[in-house]
Amino acid sequence: MPMKIALDAMGGDLGPEVTVDGAAAFVKASNTTVLLVGDPNEIEPFVAQYNMDRLVVVPAKRVIAMDEHPVSAVRQKTDSSLVVGARLVREGEADALVSAGNTGATMAAALLYMGRIPGIERPAIACPVPVQRGEAILLDVGANVDCRPQHLVQFAGMGRAYMQEVRGIANPTIGLLNIGQEVSKGNELTIKVHKLLERSSWNFIGNVEGREVFSGVANVLVCDGFVGNVVLKVAEGLGMMLFDTMKEELAVSKLEQLGARLAKPALYRVRRKLDYTEYGGAPLLGVDGVAIICHGSSDSIAVRNALSVAEDAVRAGLRDSIANTAVRLGGESSD
Amino acid sequence: MPMKIALDAMGGDLGPEVTVDGAAAFVKASNTTVLLVGDPNEIEPFVAQYNMDRLVVVPAKRVIAMDEHPVSAVRQKTDSSLVVGARLVREGEADALVSAGNTGATMAAALLYMGRIPGIERPAIACPVPVQRGEAILLDVGANVDCRPQHLVQFAGMGRAYMQEVRGIANPTIGLLNIGQEVSKGNELTIKVHKLLERSSWNFIGNVEGREVFSGVANVLVCDGFVGNVVLKVAEGLGMMLFDTMKEELAVSKLEQLGARLAKPALYRVRRKLDYTEYGGAPLLGVDGVAIICHGSSDSIAVRNALSVAEDAVRAGLRDSIANTAVRLGGESSD
Repeated sequence: MPMKIALDAMGGDLGPEVTVDGAAAFVKASNTTVLLVGDPNEIEPFVAQYNMDRLVVVPAKRVIAMDEHPVSAVRQKTDSSLVVGARLVREGEADALVSAGNTGATMAAALLYMGRIPGIERPAIACPVPVQRGEAILLDVGANVDCRPQHLVQFAGMGRAYMQEVRGIANPTIGLLNIGQEVSKGNELTIKVHKLLERSSWNFIGNVEGREVFSGVANVLVCDGFVGNVVLKVAEGLGMMLFDTMKEELAVSKLEQLGARLAKPALYRVRRKLDYTEYGGAPLLGVDGVAIICHGSSDSIAVRNALSVAEDAVRAGLRDSIANTAVRLGGESSD
Repeated sequence: MPMKIALDAMGGDLGPEVTVDGAAAFVKASNTTVLLVGDPNEIEPFVAQYNMDRLVVVPAKRVIAMDEHPVSAVRQKTDSSLVVGARLVREGEADALVSAGNTGATMAAALLYMGRIPGIERPAIACPVPVQRGEAILLDVGANVDCRPQHLVQFAGMGRAYMQEVRGIANPTIGLLNIGQEVSKGNELTIKVHKLLERSSWNFIGNVEGREVFSGVANVLVCDGFVGNVVLKVAEGLGMMLFDTMKEELAVSKLEQLGARLAKPALYRVRRKLDYTEYGGAPLLGVDGVAIICHGSSDSIAVRNALSVAEDAVRAGLRDSIANTAVRLGGESSD
């Protein structure tokens, strides 16, 4: 049966022009239908440009703004594009939800309407990170700021299922983000998590220091949502600071300006490597269905890539794979 | 009275050649004496090259290696360069201790032999970070992995004293590293710390997100030692990854290679801006005296800069300033 993905067409800083554009690019290369959820007056002018059967507008009156309180917005605005999108998934009208809107609200809507997979205590946001070799995700990056050891073990299991089933990596390596490589290093939380992961049957490679986050040494890197969120934003901030400084310094002398012009394609490729929009959105793992969260400032390429990730996750049976992981974890912990 | 600084001449990855070289460069521009603590056989050949009165070798038989267990190494190797250096400070023979050796051991030696300033519960490592404008330190970056709210308040007060007295910044801005700007955001720890800092008489600017760490929005940025250590190492790793990627990409075409050659001085200045060796070591705040910790891979410039930081800290009366802060904090918390 052909797939349907619900896209919060009103979500994100750049509005429906960008979400529709991303959806059109995605639909062109796939046979999935995208349900563009939002205000028809705002969406249809852009949809009309493409004349595609598989871009379908689903009306929703309101919008949850980027700065609204997530839970209360989701409870009050049941006719918002985000909530209508999440309901489409619950009712079986869509196979997945994609949103570049308010991250907290997306999480709240997914939890409230799609629910958790049985056995999963805390769904987590798994963010793809740019690495020198291979492929890696970091989780949790903000869904759970205070965690118990068992939560991080579940994050590891869910991240593993994602990298294996959706990204096609056999026996993914799992690392624990920590402040030293030795077993004895860490805070109360990570010392306990290390022991639990060591007892698992997974490909646990031990502690990974901050220095190695971007090396690709682990396919799945686990941490609590506070640490993960800080890491993600520090990387974003440092990247911006570096490229700003480079811009200033490359303008100092005529010779350096010329050099910068000649080297521009290479510097652009470096910048692109760091660019989250290339990485296609972060899956919210552990909700009962597929939900993909995009960066608020996503452009149409980012939206297209997020829709692809959603399609891959549905096709690979991510939900069932995580459900099986939860069952096995339940078994292990009751040993 | 002329000052004396004890330098662990054996500490660091690069050995006595580099520590002596840094000490010589420092002594040339100051009238402070550097006590080079370590094995005379290894140190004196380098010292002989300079023929300077104010480079004095203080014999110490053993060395604590970079990978030794900090506390037990300090307890067992009482004749090591690091422990002898710390003892020189306790006995009033030196005004400050500088070490590029095992960070944990330096901390342990400083705590054991110099002790804590009365009222300070947890000394913290304050690391200077490169920022776009102004000047900033991040603390704690690894001395205390599990913290209570009151510890972070003390970190803020100590960091403030350092930036004001030693770095000459009037009424330094203080930020709390957190995952959102709103008061309600954060984990259990940061939500409590936010409330406490709001009640202080300091220039508290509120929560600072990871994205802003390198902007310079706060002169003093507080967090627990686990988060701070991860942030520091993530920044180091991302910087390395970026420059490695740039090297590869700039070699792709002849034109880009030429561009890179022309732009090299600018790229070098960018790299230098990120280079910790330019920042002169991290003060261990809260110990009863002045102790400066250098990165293990410090070169002679880093050692010279760390000695300058130590000299500035002694001259500015950092110890008394922190002692006064502790007294005021004690008064405030007993309100």
